[in-house]
Amino acid sequence: MTGSKTIWSTREPLILASQSPIRAELLKKVGFPFSVATADIDERKIENELNSDTKTPQKIARALAEAKALAVSHDNPNAWVIGADQTLEFEHDILHKVVTRQEAETQLLSMSGKAHQLHSAIAVVRESKTVSLNVETAVLNMRTLSRHDIQTYCDLAGDALFQSVGCYQFEGLGRHLFASVDGREDVILGLPLDSIIKFFRSAGCLTF
Amino acid sequence: MTGSKTIWSTREPLILASQSPIRAELLKKVGFPFSVATADIDERKIENELNSDTKTPQKIARALAEAKALAVSHDNPNAWVIGADQTLEFEHDILHKVVTRQEAETQLLSMSGKAHQLHSAIAVVRESKTVSLNVETAVLNMRTLSRHDIQTYCDLAGDALFQSVGCYQFEGLGRHLFASVDGREDVILGLPLDSIIKFFRSAGCLTF
Repeated sequence: MTGSKTIWSTREPLILASQSPIRAELLKKVGFPFSVATADIDERKIENELNSDTKTPQKIARALAEAKALAVSHDNPNAWVIGADQTLEFEHDILHKVVTRQEAETQLLSMSGKAHQLHSAIAVVRESKTVSLNVETAVLNMRTLSRHDIQTYCDLAGDALFQSVGCYQFEGLGRHLFASVDGREDVILGLPLDSIIKFFRSAGCLTF
Repeated sequence: MTGSKTIWSTREPLILASQSPIRAELLKKVGFPFSVATADIDERKIENELNSDTKTPQKIARALAEAKALAVSHDNPNAWVIGADQTLEFEHDILHKVVTRQEAETQLLSMSGKAHQLHSAIAVVRESKTVSLNVETAVLNMRTLSRHDIQTYCDLAGDALFQSVGCYQFEGLGRHLFASVDGREDVILGLPLDSIIKFFRSAGCLTF
């Protein structure tokens, strides 16, 4: 960046409604100037309120991304607000973050040798109106891991086990867990950058 | 990481024979302990010595990755040495880094609206013997950019224009130049991590 020029061409500020450090890092790297705000929402309540007939992991990710963005937009009507959420689908279930080492080992053992899906949603909200809502999916094929492999991984990962769904950070040590992946890295990391860039370009917010 | 435990299970050190900060960052993030060494090689000479009948961009990337690793292995026979190189293929030509703003604008204008290929090679060398040599390709489809778009991009990119082939850093502002990509991000960034991980696992160098 030279001087104060940025990719962002409009006067309205941009806010990322997510506390995830990796999301902020991704958005910053590609040149967006933004601030971060916390959306005070009850995620489990929103999940439970969805019509159970249509409650897919993709729809839950969309609903949570939108709820986060709407909550932050309420207090910042003039800003463009990006909400983001990711759900992990494994054998028709949704996995959440674990809180104990034992849970981590059990979950990793169940996922070993099998595929799971990461659904990454983003919502863009302005003046409490949703102007973009999108979900993209990546498929991750975990290697077949022995109990000893999993224990070694958990020893090395430390507290990172409890910070992400699936007990791994793909951008870090977690990469060693996988045989292959099918999907973009930004989708795996939880912030579909290409969708964000395309939306803001079409909305006339970017300088090129 | 907890204490001094790492993913690396052998006594022999690991050396990355590349000066690229992004390559070192990628390798560090996935938990490899390593040092960086500079390979003192004449890249254009090695490129010119390849048999011209078979001188493809892939083969040049392989030859340069191997030459870097061999040069560093010579002084560090006991180490595992990773050499890496990347070539950019555009319309049957190989593009190199540019040195002036005018060259950057001209090159970007020629690439606008078209696809190019990034070929990322890695070589692993030990005791001056090549034990792994691999090249992977990503295809990048650049958006159609106006002369004004390119000038705006060049203003924002600053010196980054001259630090990478193609005048862009995909992990940064360069991402805005593309309509779509077909290939893994580690391949685009110049260090095929999955190949590296698979090789060292098969060589018995990893703890899991």
